[in-house]
This record gives sequence, structure tokens and C-alpha cells, in this order.
Amino acid sequence: MLIKIVAPIYSEDGNLTVKKFEEEINRELGFALQPDVNISFSCLRAGPTSIECFFDEKAAVPYILEEVVRAEKENQDAVIINCFGDPGLWAAREIAKIPVVGAGQASLLIASFLGEKVAIVTVVDKVCPLIRRNIRLYHLDSIVTSIRAVQIPVLEIEKKLDYVEDVILKESQAAIEKDGADVIVLGCTGFTKLSRKLYTKLSVPVVDPTLAAIKLAEMTVRRGLSQSKRKYPEVCEKERRGFTILANLTGLHG
Amino acid sequence: MLIKIVAPIYSEDGNLTVKKFEEEINRELGFALQPDVNISFSCLRAGPTSIECFFDEKAAVPYILEEVVRAEKENQDAVIINCFGDPGLWAAREIAKIPVVGAGQASLLIASFLGEKVAIVTVVDKVCPLIRRNIRLYHLDSIVTSIRAVQIPVLEIEKKLDYVEDVILKESQAAIEKDGADVIVLGCTGFTKLSRKLYTKLSVPVVDPTLAAIKLAEMTVRRGLSQSKRKYPEVCEKERRGFTILANLTGLHG
Amino acid sequence: MLIKIVAPIYSEDGNLTVKKFEEEINRELGFALQPDVNISFSCLRAGPTSIECFFDEKAAVPYILEEVVRAEKENQDAVIINCFGDPGLWAAREIAKIPVVGAGQASLLIASFLGEKVAIVTVVDKVCPLIRRNIRLYHLDSIVTSIRAVQIPVLEIEKKLDYVEDVILKESQAAIEKDGADVIVLGCTGFTKLSRKLYTKLSVPVVDPTLAAIKLAEMTVRRGLSQSKRKYPEVCEKERRGFTILANLTGLHG
Amino acid sequence: MLIKIVAPIYSEDGNLTVKKFEEEINRELGFALQPDVNISFSCLRAGPTSIECFFDEKAAVPYILEEVVRAEKENQDAVIINCFGDPGLWAAREIAKIPVVGAGQASLLIASFLGEKVAIVTVVDKVCPLIRRNIRLYHLDSIVTSIRAVQIPVLEIEKKLDYVEDVILKESQAAIEKDGADVIVLGCTGFTKLSRKLYTKLSVPVVDPTLAAIKLAEMTVRRGLSQSKRKYPEVCEKERRGFTILANLTGLHG
Amino acid sequence: MLIKIVAPIYSEDGNLTVKKFEEEINRELGFALQPDVNISFSCLRAGPTSIECFFDEKAAVPYILEEVVRAEKENQDAVIINCFGDPGLWAAREIAKIPVVGAGQASLLIASFLGEKVAIVTVVDKVCPLIRRNIRLYHLDSIVTSIRAVQIPVLEIEKKLDYVEDVILKESQAAIEKDGADVIVLGCTGFTKLSRKLYTKLSVPVVDPTLAAIKLAEMTVRRGLSQSKRKYPEVCEKERRGFTILANLTGLHG
Amino acid sequence: MLIKIVAPIYSEDGNLTVKKFEEEINRELGFALQPDVNISFSCLRAGPTSIECFFDEKAAVPYILEEVVRAEKENQDAVIINCFGDPGLWAAREIAKIPVVGAGQASLLIASFLGEKVAIVTVVDKVCPLIRRNIRLYHLDSIVTSIRAVQIPVLEIEKKLDYVEDVILKESQAAIEKDGADVIVLGCTGFTKLSRKLYTKLSVPVVDPTLAAIKLAEMTVRRGLSQSKRKYPEVCEKERRGFTILANLTGLHG
Repeated sequence: MLIKIVAPIYSEDGNLTVKKFEEEINRELGFALQPDVNISFSCLRAGPTSIECFFDEKAAVPYILEEVVRAEKENQDAVIINCFGDPGLWAAREIAKIPVVGAGQASLLIASFLGEKVAIVTVVDKVCPLIRRNIRLYHLDSIVTSIRAVQIPVLEIEKKLDYVEDVILKESQAAIEKDGADVIVLGCTGFTKLSRKLYTKLSVPVVDPTLAAIKLAEMTVRRGLSQSKRKYPEVCEKERRGFTILANLTGLHG
Repeated sequence: MLIKIVAPIYSEDGNLTVKKFEEEINRELGFALQPDVNISFSCLRAGPTSIECFFDEKAAVPYILEEVVRAEKENQDAVIINCFGDPGLWAAREIAKIPVVGAGQASLLIASFLGEKVAIVTVVDKVCPLIRRNIRLYHLDSIVTSIRAVQIPVLEIEKKLDYVEDVILKESQAAIEKDGADVIVLGCTGFTKLSRKLYTKLSVPVVDPTLAAIKLAEMTVRRGLSQSKRKYPEVCEKERRGFTILANLTGLHG
Repeated sequence: MLIKIVAPIYSEDGNLTVKKFEEEINRELGFALQPDVNISFSCLRAGPTSIECFFDEKAAVPYILEEVVRAEKENQDAVIINCFGDPGLWAAREIAKIPVVGAGQASLLIASFLGEKVAIVTVVDKVCPLIRRNIRLYHLDSIVTSIRAVQIPVLEIEKKLDYVEDVILKESQAAIEKDGADVIVLGCTGFTKLSRKLYTKLSVPVVDPTLAAIKLAEMTVRRGLSQSKRKYPEVCEKERRGFTILANLTGLHG
Repeated sequence: MLIKIVAPIYSEDGNLTVKKFEEEINRELGFALQPDVNISFSCLRAGPTSIECFFDEKAAVPYILEEVVRAEKENQDAVIINCFGDPGLWAAREIAKIPVVGAGQASLLIASFLGEKVAIVTVVDKVCPLIRRNIRLYHLDSIVTSIRAVQIPVLEIEKKLDYVEDVILKESQAAIEKDGADVIVLGCTGFTKLSRKLYTKLSVPVVDPTLAAIKLAEMTVRRGLSQSKRKYPEVCEKERRGFTILANLTGLHG
Repeated sequence: MLIKIVAPIYSEDGNLTVKKFEEEINRELGFALQPDVNISFSCLRAGPTSIECFFDEKAAVPYILEEVVRAEKENQDAVIINCFGDPGLWAAREIAKIPVVGAGQASLLIASFLGEKVAIVTVVDKVCPLIRRNIRLYHLDSIVTSIRAVQIPVLEIEKKLDYVEDVILKESQAAIEKDGADVIVLGCTGFTKLSRKLYTKLSVPVVDPTLAAIKLAEMTVRRGLSQSKRKYPEVCEKERRGFTILANLTGLHG
Repeated sequence: MLIKIVAPIYSEDGNLTVKKFEEEINRELGFALQPDVNISFSCLRAGPTSIECFFDEKAAVPYILEEVVRAEKENQDAVIINCFGDPGLWAAREIAKIPVVGAGQASLLIASFLGEKVAIVTVVDKVCPLIRRNIRLYHLDSIVTSIRAVQIPVLEIEKKLDYVEDVILKESQAAIEKDGADVIVLGCTGFTKLSRKLYTKLSVPVVDPTLAAIKLAEMTVRRGLSQSKRKYPEVCEKERRGFTILANLTGLHG
């Protein structure tokens, strides 16, 4: 089975970023991966360097959609948009026939099955409206009990990993004690770097969005399912000026 | 007062489109406009020719954001994104300090004040998931009683105006009688062409989204208000590759 | 355009009250009024001196309805019930064909368009159940994040304006920081006296209910709309003993 | 135990109306009454002859409140506002210390205990917005599955009892089969005339609002309970011009 | 009228337990009981000694159902499952034609009629998920404002009654002041021992679940009603191995 | 990985039933199973022969819990309660440390990820209240658009497979066209017999509950997760008379 993980960001040295990301996934999540699943990685040819507000999301989406189209052309079996904010998820499901999985939605569904009061620990306050938008769209308002931010921008995480680990644990503990949370969801795919450590240090289940997405993608593929084309109908042809992807889209499903 | 209306579509002959659109607004909605309000129009330099699904929306948003930035630079007092689907509304509110009004949200708020069971009559089935997304995001689920489509794509409206008028009236009537609607919202800014006629032919209030947006923009400007910067915080600087707008954004609010 | 603002209270020296109220509106809200809108004022010939509980509301409503009927007879284009509790709003919309605007509903709709977590700062705890009733009836439960009272009865506001300003600012600040509010609604039309000052002293938009009602009334009139007669059907004739208005109602819409 | 039932309508020959009403209660509901409960009846000294819209309600409420005050002065143990629309219920609970029971709320609570999908069969379409208001205020939206009207005004019921019985049965049957109802609530206290007959002719429980109110009043009195004064705080003194009741209210709870 | 109260627990010395329970009910709730209502008591022949989690509930239910079947065979008019968690309530309503009343649901309905923000004070944290399950099933989520536990297991209550009284009062007070509660529901039938004392010591109504259940059972019987057989359809015959009750069930309603 | 699937029914010839069930799973779902997952099966030593109402559920649960305890003792990695009604799911999660997966919840979560309007096609009307209970407990009310029954009891399915296939397709089609469903969930594990055929004959995704449960169990095990012990706290010791399981429970987690 072939699964493509799209890191929905632009990076000046894309190859290096992809390589580091691959190592990180294998190191932190390797224990849960399966031998017959071949995961490949990509990041965007343009767009923002991180997604922390609605504007970042909109600036990334056209390039995310390009990667989704490319994944389908490469005969991938599924594609993961690997950002907790699920940028472009619904549009991607329209243009693809293969399953498109968002790391945010995947982790929230898994969390809702493990407990009933889910807390999300994320990076910065600015990203919270975007997360709240998704919770509402996924009809999970009554399950998510709180969103807490550690006040570290995505691009700073790597530079102060120990501090980030500490504040994630502190906010998670507060979510458990003050907000009554019974499951913690890591609200940024940048936290995967700390995934294994965090798993063992809290008294409630901790859900990593990238891992949730990989397992949900696998499951969907093995079951021969994909997103409903009644909810995400095929995109019809019309003139759309401005992106390489648009020019190429015609005939994609022909 | 200066208000810019952005028609969030690409048109091969943009100038002509803008001119026709201006005539249409004046003809159909002129009765409600005020002398001290100077409305100007623009459409996109690229993007789709109409917005009827999530993909169309994502393909339009970068160019919509360009127009919003331009409107603010031109010292407009408010900007309207003139599509019932409100593409890019929240990102636009992040990058702009002046009020950004979506025709969809404006019309639904006005409708919720005139009655309690609002029906939306729109173009095609494909656009309904996008409209349902917005209804949910605006917390209006319990007020919108039904969405009905006349099954005419946006670009066909102009070619068969009489037929379109007939089916809008038919679906509106069905919404009133079968769904218990007490207000009808025209669920496509392309229906403004028929606005005056429709107003007089139904037993319940009919809300035109463009007019609702203009009046809400006026009100917001006169009251010296704008979107809350706590919900739509200012976009921070970071590298974002790929759009002219991104290069220019730095310093915009400097 | 003629708009009648009904202050839904009895005052021993009604003329003086109306005059003071008029001055206040012009001083505080004049910047947003338009030259072609002619606003007139009235208060009730009987009823309570302020509305702070359900009983006050019920005691005021018959006299409010009289003023609404009178406004329509005077050929006013719209009538505003100028109390945050919207006393008698739905009954008034039944008996009137012209739009009837409630200051509470108007301000909450405007607020819901400017942000997503609205806090209301009002006078006393006793009035909160009445406000909560309205929030529920307007289907805004998931948008209003908190109601805070400054513990000053309506009739005391004028006597200690500086103190009132201070506590409104203090409670608003608490609403922003503790309740996550991104918009503040002034939950009493008596606070209009402080409107201009409050506007400039908070980091989020501040919505004045009287101003919201005036602008929404204007908009509704200019658009040729009014409340849906399916939701607020015309009152049928039957014997109703006890109020002047009842005797006069027959034939009103004849 | 003394229970006062207030029929919240004006009747030209009040004594006769009260007498007929008393006979009806005894004939239809006597089987469920208890020997130590002394029920007395009154109707209003003014107000509308029936309550079928918001305006009727507002015109009745001041006189209903008078009867509630009178009941408390007479040392009644509880008072019932005997209309399905529960006019003035919350204001009455503010001014009274004894429990005030609304026939509508009582019947809906009983119904919610007997099943899960409650249908209301009422008189005319015009009254439905008022009933919907109450359902929302009582947080019963997700339990009430439909409201159906037999299209007979209150004052016509008595004249065509057989026909009314037929249409109530027909609409109830439709509610069961089409709307999935598992309990029927008679949505007008005027239907008590047919109460015994209807009980036996449907396959689901039928709830009579007057009987529900009597039993709930009894229970509340026997348990020594009354409405929470935190939700319905005592009315404070202030000048309220215009009703006998207002003049007398001061000192009521002294 | 015959009402059977089932204490849904096993007790080594069942007769003594039943006797003590009977004395307690008479002492604490006797003031509200009626002469023509004959209440009898039973506890289970097996099962857990208290119900404080889902597992306890499941272990008790088969024996509860036996008691319900027995009560119907004894020609009881109604049966009460006397635990705040309402164990087996819906299954019991399927197998019985006589009304089955749960102490939890009864008290919550009464509470929802007395106020709008209900707080539950219960025994231990472990039981809260079970209570939250019921609140959700009864569609009372928006009415219950908080659940607070005094951290005393059921079987300890009797041993430290004074302490229990103190903490119930303390938590109730906190619910009123911090959570805005306007009604307190005693969230354990073991608290009935303190019922009379608690009634007088709080500023809001206090609802005892056993008393609520008795009065609701009485009311239902006097009104000739029972649970809807559309929601709780009669159990069909099929082989069910393992309980005495199963062998006996066939023919019960024959 | 070891997964135990519990068919929560009693069968006179248990061994044969288990064997037939195993063949069915392999034949219909084998395509999605993985080589390193060892699935074993069991049914109950007592209980009902099918679960179609609350009473059936309660009669099965004690024996289901026995199987869950046994599975954990056998060092299974996860256990599946293989009935769409999820009987005993929450109690099982309390007594087990290994993940307990319910086929109903698993399929509904998968469905909510594939579309937005989920329809359930189940066996008989009687089982619908039980399914509705679960939908509510899982907070999926706003996602499940309809439940349709083919009116075939579980034990009849095998006897008329062709007919059952036809009516499932017919009801699914109706759910798509009339209720707007975009995903179909098979609302009975007895329908797995037809799983492969149904997958290919509908225009929307079809979710089989057994397969969903297997894949969710696998995922949970591979990720090293289990249900939150804050939502499902460990069962404390106390005397519980009446089941083998109870005697054995002490020391289980010791």
C-alpha cells in the first residue's frame, strides 16, 4: 500500500525537510507502522513556512491541492494532509478519488472513541480560531472540552524541544485537572517530535495526529473505501485561471 | 464613504464584466443605495469563472485576498466579497483592518432578524455542502430550515433569465409550504439580476445577498466598527512563497 | 425616512425625559446618523420606570404596543423598542406592518457578525434571566459567552456616571480575558450615555444597542423589507377588553 | 390543599364561564383528583376572549398577574395558569411565593417522561410560533417532534365538538405514523372537553395539559417546594404606573 | 394505590435493610405521602451492594428486572427503581405495562420545572460518567449546569452522617455561587437520610430523588398513564438463557 | 496481534455458530484482514439468541462481560463486542485494560469521516430506540440523518438472504434520495453475510460494523492506546453477588 504524506508547508531546502520529517516519523511512530505500507513524503513548492492562521491556510491550499493531484497521478492509495488544521481537506476530497485524510480530523475521531472530554494542546493562540472552525465543522463541539496553547510558534518548536515538552505536559495536566479532559490530542503535527515521550508521561491517552492519520488512511484503503462522492462531488470542468493544477485538472478523472 | 465590491471570479473580459455588474447593481438595488456611498467594483485577475464547489473556492481565494489588500491600500472604507459562499472571508478579515463583509453571512443575519425559519434558494446541488459549511460556522443551523437548488449553473443564469425566475419562485413557494419557511434568501449573487421582480412575487420577505452586504458594510463603517481583532488577529510576518500578495503584505499595517 | 424610538418606560415628566434622551442620542450617536433619517422619540403614558425583570416587562408591554400602533398611524417607516430586553417585540411585530426593531436583538446580530464569542455587560443580576431568555429565543446560545452585571440599577446610572464607566470597563476586560470574549455588547440602553467613551477604551469592538437598532431599522426600510408575516401573522379581530389599544386595533390594517 | 386555576381569558359572563369550566374539569378529570385538594376557578376581569397569538398573550398577562396576586392573598397553596401557551408564567413566578404552574410546561414535562418523541396537537397555525417559543425556552426542542394544528379557533371548539374530536384523532394518528411520535400532548386547554374520549382512542399516551398542571401543582405543594427564587427573584419596589396590581404589589411579601 | 420501591442493591440481611429503608422513607418523606398510597419495598436477591459505576449497574440490572416483573405480578400500580443512576430503566419499561419510574429522571424533571440551572450533588467521581450518560439521554444537557461529588462512597454515608451533611451543603453552596445553580438535586438516594435537614438549609429548592419518584409515580397512576409502548415496545418471545426471569417472562402479558 | 470477537448472543450449538461466524468473516471481510492479526471468536454461554431491544441487551450483558474478562485473561490485545447496539460497551471498558471496541461506535466514527449525513439501515423497528440511544451517547445526533429498518428479525436473515439484500438496497437507496444520506452504515452485524455484495451496489460508501471494529481495534493496539481510565475508571472491589464473573473480578488487575 502506498501512502503519501504531504507536509503542507514551503521550505527553502525542501529535500532536507522531507528527509528530516521522514526520519522523525520513523523514529517516533515507527513502532506502529506496518511492513506492507510504503510511506512517502513531500512538502510544497511554494506557500507559507508554517500554518498558524486562516491566511496561512489559504496561502498553502493551492499548493496542497497540487500535491494531492500529484499523489493520485503517482497511484498512491491514499494521501494525508499533515497539519492539525486540515487545510484544504474538503477541496482535496473533491478533486481526488483516493481517500484524503486530515491529521486533525483523524486524531479527533480516534480521541472521541477513547474518551468523552477531549482537550487539544496546540502551539499559539492565533491558531485557535482555525481549530475551533474545524471542531464545529466536524460536529465535535460537545466533545472537545478545551483548547490550550503553549505559546510557541511552529518554527520555534525544534529549537527548544525540552521546554516545549515541559509546557505541553503542564498544559495537558491542567486540561485534565481543570477542564476534566480524559484524552489529550496533540494539536500540532510539529509535536510528533516529542510523541513517544509524551505518551508515557500522562495518565490519559495521548493522540498524535500524524499517527492517527496514517492508521486511518491504512484502514480506509484496506477496506476499499473513500470519501463519499455525494458529499464531495467530482469537480466539473470550467475555466479556472492561475494555477498549474487548474490547467491539468481537466481529464484527470477522464 | 467608499465601498469596494469584489466579484470573486475571473472573467476573460474583466472590464466588461465589471461594467455589466455595476449596471445590474444600480438597476436592481439602486433604490436602496445612498448618495454619500461610493461603490466601486472589481473582479479577479485570475481564478475560476464561477464558485460552485470547495475547489472553486480555494482556487479563487488567493486572488480575492489580493483584491482585499488592494481595497485597503486604496483607502476604501469597507470591502464586500460578493459571493453567497463567502470565499476567503475569515482570511480576508485577518489581513484587513477595514470591515470585510460576506454577502452570504450578511443575508443570513438579516434573514434571521425578519423571521425564524429561513430557506435558501441556490443554483446547483454541488454548492450545497459549501453553503451548509457556512451555516454551521455561523451557528445558524437551527434557523435555516432548507436549502433548495434550481439546478442552473451560475454561468447559465444570464442565458435563461425567465426560466430561472420561474424555478426560483417555484422552489421558494415549496420552501414556504413544505419546509415552513418564513423568509427566503437568494443563495447566489447571480440572482440579483432578478432581485426586484422576486421581491414582489412572494408572500414572505426575500433577502438579496448583495444588498444585505452593502447595507451591513455601510452600517459598520458609519458606526466606526470592524471585525474583532481577537477573533481575526493580525497576520504575522513569515516567509510565504508564491503570491504577489505575500511579497507585499509585509509592512501593510506598518 | 421616519423612525420612532420608543423608550419603553414611564416617566413622571415624560417631555423632559424625551428631550434628554434625544440630546443623548444626538451627542453620543450623532456621528453615525444620516441626514435623511428623521428620528423622533416617545416614552410610555404608564408602566414601570425601568425594566429589570419579567414583571417589569409585562407591566410595560401594553403601553409599548400602544406606542407601536401610534407610530404606524403616524406613518413612521420603522419603530424601535429601545430596551435591551426587547419587551413586547414579537407582539409588536404582529400588530405592525412597519418593521419593529428591538435594540437587544439588533445589537446581538451585529455582534455575531463582528466576532464569535460575544459578552454582554448589563446592569443587575435580576435582569439576566430575561436576557438569557432572549438569547435562547434568537438561537444565539452558542455565540454569547457570558453575561456580566455591573450591579447598578438602571435608575442609578445617571447619578454615578464615572463609576459606571469604570465598572463597565472592568467587567468588559474580565469578559475578554476570562471568558474569551471578542466583542462586547452594552446590555442596557442606559449605557448609551457612555457610548463614545467606551468605544475607544477596549481592544475589541463595542456594540451600542440603540445605535445597532437605528442602523438596522434604516437598512430594513431602505431595502423595503419588514418582519415576515408568516412568523408574525396579522392579529385577528376578537373581543379584547381592557386597553385603549384594543378598542382601536380593529380596522387598523383595514 | 387549595389550588386556584386561572382561565386566562375574559368572558362577558364570567360566572357562567367559571361554572361551566368547573363542571368540565370535574366531569373529564375528576377520576384523577384527590379529596383533600380543593380546586377553585377564576377567569380574568378583562383581556382577550382567547389566546392565539403573541398579542393576545400580552393583552391577557396584566390581568393574569392580578389573579396570581389574588390567589396568593387568598392563601391558595398553588396557582395554575390554564392555557397551553403559559402566558405570563415567568413574571407570575417572580411576584408569587407559592408555586405557579403553567399547563403547557407541565404537560410537556410529563410527556417527556412517558416517551421521547412528543407531538403537540393544537388549534390553529397562528398559535404555533408561541408554542415553539415555549418549547425552546423549556429546552425541549429535541424532544418535540412536531406541532400540528386542527385549524379550529378556540372559541369554535365547543360548537363542533364531534368534528374537533375527529380532527384531533386524525392529526394525532398522522403525528404517530409520519412524525414518529410516541406521546401526544393536547396543545390547548380547550381540548379538555374531549379528554376522556381521546385517552382511549390512540395507541400512545395522551397528555391533558390541565390535568398535568393540577397533578404537578399538588406534587409541588406536598413536597413543600416552589419555583427557585434565584431564577425568579422577588420583584423590587419601584414606581409602576397603570395597573391596580401595581399599586397593591408593594407590601405583598412584606 | 400500590407502589413498589425497588432498592436496586443486594444486602446480606435483606429484611433488615428493607425495614430500615422503610423507616427512613417514612421519617424523612412521610410529610408528603398520601393515605391512599400503599408503598412497599424490596431489595435484590443478588447483585452489587451499591451502584457507583457502569459495571455495578450491569451487575444489578438482571435482578432489578426480576423485581419489576414481580411487582407487576403482585398487581402493583407502579414500580420505582430507587437509584439516582436509573439502572435498567428502559429495559424495565419494555417488560412492564405498569409505569416504571426512575428516581434520577423524576428528580431532574421536577428540578427543570423549578429553575433553569440545575446542579447535582452526588457521592463519588466514579459515578459521574453514569450520571452524565443519563442527562444526555434525557436531553437535559443544557439544563444541568454542574455535577459535584462529595467523595463519600454510598456505603460510607450512614457511618458519617454529620460529615456528609456538611459536605453536601458545602458543595451545594459552591454550585449556587460558582456554577450559577438555581436548583439542587440530591444525586444519590442514599442522601434521603438527610433530606429534611437539607431542605431547610439552602437558599434554592432541593429535590430528593426518592420523593420525586414517588410523587411522579402517583401522578402517573392517578392519570391512568404509563410509558409509551411505541418507545418501549413489548418484548417479543425468543430463547433467552440464564435468568429465572427469562424463563418466566413468556406468558407474562399473555 | 490477538483480537477476540465476541458475538454477544447465546446459541444452542455454540461451537457450530462460532465456526460459521468465522467462515463468514473470512469470506466477506478477509480481503481487509492482515496476516499478523489473529482473530478468534466466541459467543455467550447464556443470554438471548439475538439483541433487538433493551431487555435483550440487559440479558446479554453479564455474559458479555464474562467474555471480556476471559479475553483479557487470555492475553488478547483487544476485544470486540460484535453487535451494532454495543451492549455493555461502557461497563466492559471499566473492567478491561485492553481496548474494547463496539461495532456500532466503530462504524459510526468511520462513517462520520467519509461523509456528513449518515443513514443506518437496520433490522426491525424495535431496535431503533436502542440505536438512537447510542447515537445520542456518542454525540452523533447531528450526523445521523435517518435510521431505516428492513423489518426482518436477526434470526430470519440467514433464511432469506436474497430478499434481505433486496430490501437493504431499497432502503439504502431511499436513504440516499429522500434523506440526503451520503454514507450507509449496515446497522446489524448480521448483515455482514451480504457485505461484499452491498459494497458494490450503492453509489455511496457502505460501512460494515464488524470490519470497522476490527480495523479500529488493530489501530488502537498498534498505537499502544486504550480507553481512557478517567472516563472508564477501574472497578473497585465490593461485594457483588450473583455472577461467576463477579467472584473472579477481584484480583484481576491486582
